[in-house]
Amino acid sequence: MNVNAPSPDSRTQDIASLMNAIGHAAVDAARELANTTTAQRNAALLAVAAAVRENRAAILDANRQDLQSARERDLSAALLDRLMLDEKRIESMAAGLEAIVSLADPLGVVTAEWTRPNGMRIQRVRVPLGVIGIIYESRPNVTADAGALCLKSGNAVILRGGSESIRSNRAIHQCLVAGLRAASLPEAAVQLVPTTDRAAVGHMLGSMTDFIDVIVPRGGKSLVSRVQQEARVPVIGHLEGVCHVYVDRDADLEMARSIVLNAKLRRTGVCGAAETLLIDRAAGALLAPIVTALLDAGCEVRGDDAIRGIDRRVVSASEEDWYAEYLDSIIAARLVDGVDGAVQHIAKYGSGHTESIVTGNAETAERFLSTVDSAIVLHNASTQFADGGEFGMGAEIGISTDKFHARGPVGVEQLTSYKYVVRGSGQTRP
Amino acid sequence: MNVNAPSPDSRTQDIASLMNAIGHAAVDAARELANTTTAQRNAALLAVAAAVRENRAAILDANRQDLQSARERDLSAALLDRLMLDEKRIESMAAGLEAIVSLADPLGVVTAEWTRPNGMRIQRVRVPLGVIGIIYESRPNVTADAGALCLKSGNAVILRGGSESIRSNRAIHQCLVAGLRAASLPEAAVQLVPTTDRAAVGHMLGSMTDFIDVIVPRGGKSLVSRVQQEARVPVIGHLEGVCHVYVDRDADLEMARSIVLNAKLRRTGVCGAAETLLIDRAAGALLAPIVTALLDAGCEVRGDDAIRGIDRRVVSASEEDWYAEYLDSIIAARLVDGVDGAVQHIAKYGSGHTESIVTGNAETAERFLSTVDSAIVLHNASTQFADGGEFGMGAEIGISTDKFHARGPVGVEQLTSYKYVVRGSGQTRP
Repeated sequence: MNVNAPSPDSRTQDIASLMNAIGHAAVDAARELANTTTAQRNAALLAVAAAVRENRAAILDANRQDLQSARERDLSAALLDRLMLDEKRIESMAAGLEAIVSLADPLGVVTAEWTRPNGMRIQRVRVPLGVIGIIYESRPNVTADAGALCLKSGNAVILRGGSESIRSNRAIHQCLVAGLRAASLPEAAVQLVPTTDRAAVGHMLGSMTDFIDVIVPRGGKSLVSRVQQEARVPVIGHLEGVCHVYVDRDADLEMARSIVLNAKLRRTGVCGAAETLLIDRAAGALLAPIVTALLDAGCEVRGDDAIRGIDRRVVSASEEDWYAEYLDSIIAARLVDGVDGAVQHIAKYGSGHTESIVTGNAETAERFLSTVDSAIVLHNASTQFADGGEFGMGAEIGISTDKFHARGPVGVEQLTSYKYVVRGSGQTRP
Repeated sequence: MNVNAPSPDSRTQDIASLMNAIGHAAVDAARELANTTTAQRNAALLAVAAAVRENRAAILDANRQDLQSARERDLSAALLDRLMLDEKRIESMAAGLEAIVSLADPLGVVTAEWTRPNGMRIQRVRVPLGVIGIIYESRPNVTADAGALCLKSGNAVILRGGSESIRSNRAIHQCLVAGLRAASLPEAAVQLVPTTDRAAVGHMLGSMTDFIDVIVPRGGKSLVSRVQQEARVPVIGHLEGVCHVYVDRDADLEMARSIVLNAKLRRTGVCGAAETLLIDRAAGALLAPIVTALLDAGCEVRGDDAIRGIDRRVVSASEEDWYAEYLDSIIAARLVDGVDGAVQHIAKYGSGHTESIVTGNAETAERFLSTVDSAIVLHNASTQFADGGEFGMGAEIGISTDKFHARGPVGVEQLTSYKYVVRGSGQTRP
């Protein structure tokens, strides 16, 4: 950046040429990466893990500086916690890198093959998407996690973290570069945008369609919705997890109570946490014990009139509560007319993330599973399972509520495309 | 539309409310369609085919009016040909609808399933995308083809055809509505934008993210690139087919000649037609017979110096020729340094559509197939096979040169998303 207080125009031009240089380097690196072996990419990842452990003092030092300026700028305690690294978090970052090594390589997998009557053999083979842009907020571990998932899947990545964590990100990025170098892979396979200028984000979103194949925003609702609003590049994003648990008339009380409590309260800040409880109007005896259990566990219950009739601690729900993603110990609760009432409520207020039905009736369950249009639908299980790791897919870069390209947990497989490989013996088309 | 010469503002508002009403109806119809059976959707398609045959006089009459106004507006002969319907084209439209009936239903297919250690059974199940927008030019048969492919895959569709074919499109759309009605499916499953106002296209592209899940442009390069420029909604599009045939030193002459002639000349106007011929500098004896065969077949050859040395009929190629999609009896030709030279040329000038290598050397072939990053790569077969039907995938809505979501032929399977269905027995997350 020019230090002589450049005019806005020259600043914009500087950002544009910086970002385009990053884009060109990423495209070149992606081309190389597409033809690397599993062993090469895994060797790089192991070398990154080793570098993270080896350089933990430097990472912690950079992080202390980030924390200090965050405190000087009076940033919230929640943000400081997300920003903070310690020995334990650094070790978990390194272990996370090693876990990605143990995932199956998604590349080169033949997902379909068939032979045509004229003898041509057609295969659909997984290949990398190309260049992935990651725009994230203050968590420095995303630098390692997201960088590693992209590398594992053979994609080059352009990382743009929050300005609060720039020093920590740089220190972690140095470890990624060291790992790439150790495995003789192109260093531009993982690039960190070096400036905190917000114009860089605008340029990534709007002007890098020739360089970036997909952008993944990782952060709160306002970041994701800004990205979805501005991006000309395809986006894999998840906006909200307004997850529902529906307790049917044929539910077992014990099971319903334990699923509702787990779905709401195991961790309230995750996107798979239940936000709304729907209870079948015909569920009679199930109603009071479940609502009471939530209240007794310290959860605020915002209910319709019927729910309020159960306990004086229930507060009144307003229309907005049905749309709310609390990410807190609060649940909205109402009665619905059976499974169809639940489906209707979810269609109107849900965010298409994760919903669960608790019932002993297989037919009712199938009706719910087939008609609810969400990324994940569960029968007799907690919504908190909405997680790539819990699905057995390994580390994830997020959970997509889009239907296009990737839906649900976005792991290494979802960071790929495919091509058709056709083997013939001289066939021409008549 | 208001006939009293409305102000531009009120016109824009009229279009916005018209399009939003169409969007709402499409979303409602999509929800219904997602839960229909294969039999219902197929019954509707058969009824559409019957209605097309029954109403051919009305369709032809509407088409005559479209043709007459096109002639009055001095539109090109090529456009008039694309616009023109006759008994034969109408019969082929009806037969095309019946062919879509015979395709396997992509919906409900379980594409992966596994059981977790805690006993949860996870399935990935194909579901419709939701609402698809099709923006097309003057071919009225797209109304039937695209409408039918969307219906088959359980998606609601909003069709926006060119203004030249509006009367023909309306007549065909009436048949689609009749078929939906006959099968008791929602009529809004297939809607035709009733106005030719271009603002409607702008509204679809920029303001209908809440209603439309994906837009598929079908038409020339300028339409597709306008759509890709303006769209806030995801797009499946193909911009160009700058397809290559590479003749390697180890190619069989007869095979190479027949593949090159077929790839270039079988039909020159299709996106899978070869546009550039790359010949291995070490291919010696293969060079002259292939170039001569092209010239003798009436193809213009634009060559580099080496190619020009073969025959006086070869004209000189300029830099632009390597980027050109001629869609005509013209081919650009040059020598390259073996398979790596071919791969480099394709990486620089290609459009990522379809490329073929002709060689008897299996190792060279694998190198080409694995390193060329195109939707379709072929060994010893003509690029003209780049077609959903030729792939055995049934009718296609186009060939995608994107890597995101769908790549290569876009058939009914590519018009779907998926969801995860999880069956448990009371599992909660520890």
